[in-house]
Amino acid sequence: MALDAQRLAEAAAQALMARDNASAALGIKLIEVRPGYARMQMTVRSDMVNIHGTAHGGMVFTLADSAFGYACNSHNKIAVASGCSIDFLRPAHLDETLTATAVEQTVIGRNGVYDVRVENNKGELVALFRGKSAQIRGTVTEDAPGS
Amino acid sequence: MALDAQRLAEAAAQALMARDNASAALGIKLIEVRPGYARMQMTVRSDMVNIHGTAHGGMVFTLADSAFGYACNSHNKIAVASGCSIDFLRPAHLDETLTATAVEQTVIGRNGVYDVRVENNKGELVALFRGKSAQIRGTVTEDAPGS
Amino acid sequence: MALDAQRLAEAAAQALMARDNASAALGIKLIEVRPGYARMQMTVRSDMVNIHGTAHGGMVFTLADSAFGYACNSHNKIAVASGCSIDFLRPAHLDETLTATAVEQTVIGRNGVYDVRVENNKGELVALFRGKSAQIRGTVTEDAPGS
Amino acid sequence: MALDAQRLAEAAAQALMARDNASAALGIKLIEVRPGYARMQMTVRSDMVNIHGTAHGGMVFTLADSAFGYACNSHNKIAVASGCSIDFLRPAHLDETLTATAVEQTVIGRNGVYDVRVENNKGELVALFRGKSAQIRGTVTEDAPGS
Repeated sequence: MALDAQRLAEAAAQALMARDNASAALGIKLIEVRPGYARMQMTVRSDMVNIHGTAHGGMVFTLADSAFGYACNSHNKIAVASGCSIDFLRPAHLDETLTATAVEQTVIGRNGVYDVRVENNKGELVALFRGKSAQIRGTVTEDAPGS
Repeated sequence: MALDAQRLAEAAAQALMARDNASAALGIKLIEVRPGYARMQMTVRSDMVNIHGTAHGGMVFTLADSAFGYACNSHNKIAVASGCSIDFLRPAHLDETLTATAVEQTVIGRNGVYDVRVENNKGELVALFRGKSAQIRGTVTEDAPGS
Repeated sequence: MALDAQRLAEAAAQALMARDNASAALGIKLIEVRPGYARMQMTVRSDMVNIHGTAHGGMVFTLADSAFGYACNSHNKIAVASGCSIDFLRPAHLDETLTATAVEQTVIGRNGVYDVRVENNKGELVALFRGKSAQIRGTVTEDAPGS
Repeated sequence: MALDAQRLAEAAAQALMARDNASAALGIKLIEVRPGYARMQMTVRSDMVNIHGTAHGGMVFTLADSAFGYACNSHNKIAVASGCSIDFLRPAHLDETLTATAVEQTVIGRNGVYDVRVENNKGELVALFRGKSAQIRGTVTEDAPGS
């Protein structure tokens, strides 16, 4: 059963990746997915840099938001973000690789809360993100085991 | 004096635009800037679309965050975002043009709060964003009138 | 019809006040209610003071949250808070009277967003609050005009 | 050294409690304090109940905010809240005892982020809270070991 949940998470992630143009355009890669969990990476490119010569807050947010999206869809029930907050703790510099780790805090009924930590190469915290999800009708993939 | 503040806002915005790779890469355009205010637009491209076929939340956030950035730097004192929150109210679809309007709510000491509304072509609310800024040392441009 | 909406808001507020022990215990008073709008006041008492000798953040929040609650229930459909954020801008001192003004930003389906400003006697901003509401089944009062 | 940090946290908490009228008025009790950590409890009284017959959101927030305050002042450097957010997940009922556990996520320079979980008697999650702190000048207590 735990194995099935893991296979479902992987099947859902594959289905998501096939359609996720925005993450692909930014070079965001899925490193690991588990039920209620996702880890993704992005390297800060020159076209992601803001007026201060560091990663645009929107790019850091997008990485965190993507990890949140994969985590909250990992149960193969389609979920959308209703709201998010982010605290920027350290600037991220050109060519740094950022890792976002999303962990499910709770799912009650159709609503979930997910916390995401974004860290740089040195393991320093770049941002803390919290996302609220709402499940809507439908499944992410029909190719899931047993479905 | 109000005229000088307006010229300063415009000079700061020009200096920002020259260095803002991320906004440029996403086709984000500055429509209007005033002291403590900025209005920007972005059209949802196919490379901004997420797993649901609508604009990735990170792209909507980036537009709002950019408008916030131009508004909080409009006094020609460098300001950075310390934290932001966003509520997603309606999906944004491919080819829609989104308009983000950032309005300063308060600046106390070095800290400011800015509210941003993101609307679609029909004037419908797509997202509400609130950003907190912190001024750091330095000016955005040295080409400002009187500086 | 606008008159009916106003009467409904007033009837709902009266029904709320009759059951709102927490606001009563803190001396929170309703000053004005309109559809999607509420204004409330609270004077900082010695039993509301925190470790810094100023109003406990929780007391400022409670005032703002009450105004939000009256505003989002003013349409006579029961609504509950799903999440809130607050930014503390200035301390509130003993014996100061704080005014919280809640204004509806949007209601889409069952979900609403309300912004609340908390000001002191001098009209200075003490806190900015944003609340998200979700309508559930039921009406606030059955004594409403036409219901 | 870890022992000194623990003694400092306890000395700071004692100094805080002596001045914290608001928490005392609501019957909020400190259960445990460690460096960057605090656990507090509050029982929902009839004067804390809102219009829905459950704990007013402001009371749940106040409990969480108090735990946050004790955690961010546990290093004996005075810290104040700059902003907080809360997600309400389950109603809290009359006579239930709520436990708020605050855990430091990071302190960078003078700024910290703390996460607080509020649970009911059954260990069910009632609310998730995130607080941002800013250290100001001064120490909480001068009676601290070695200070």
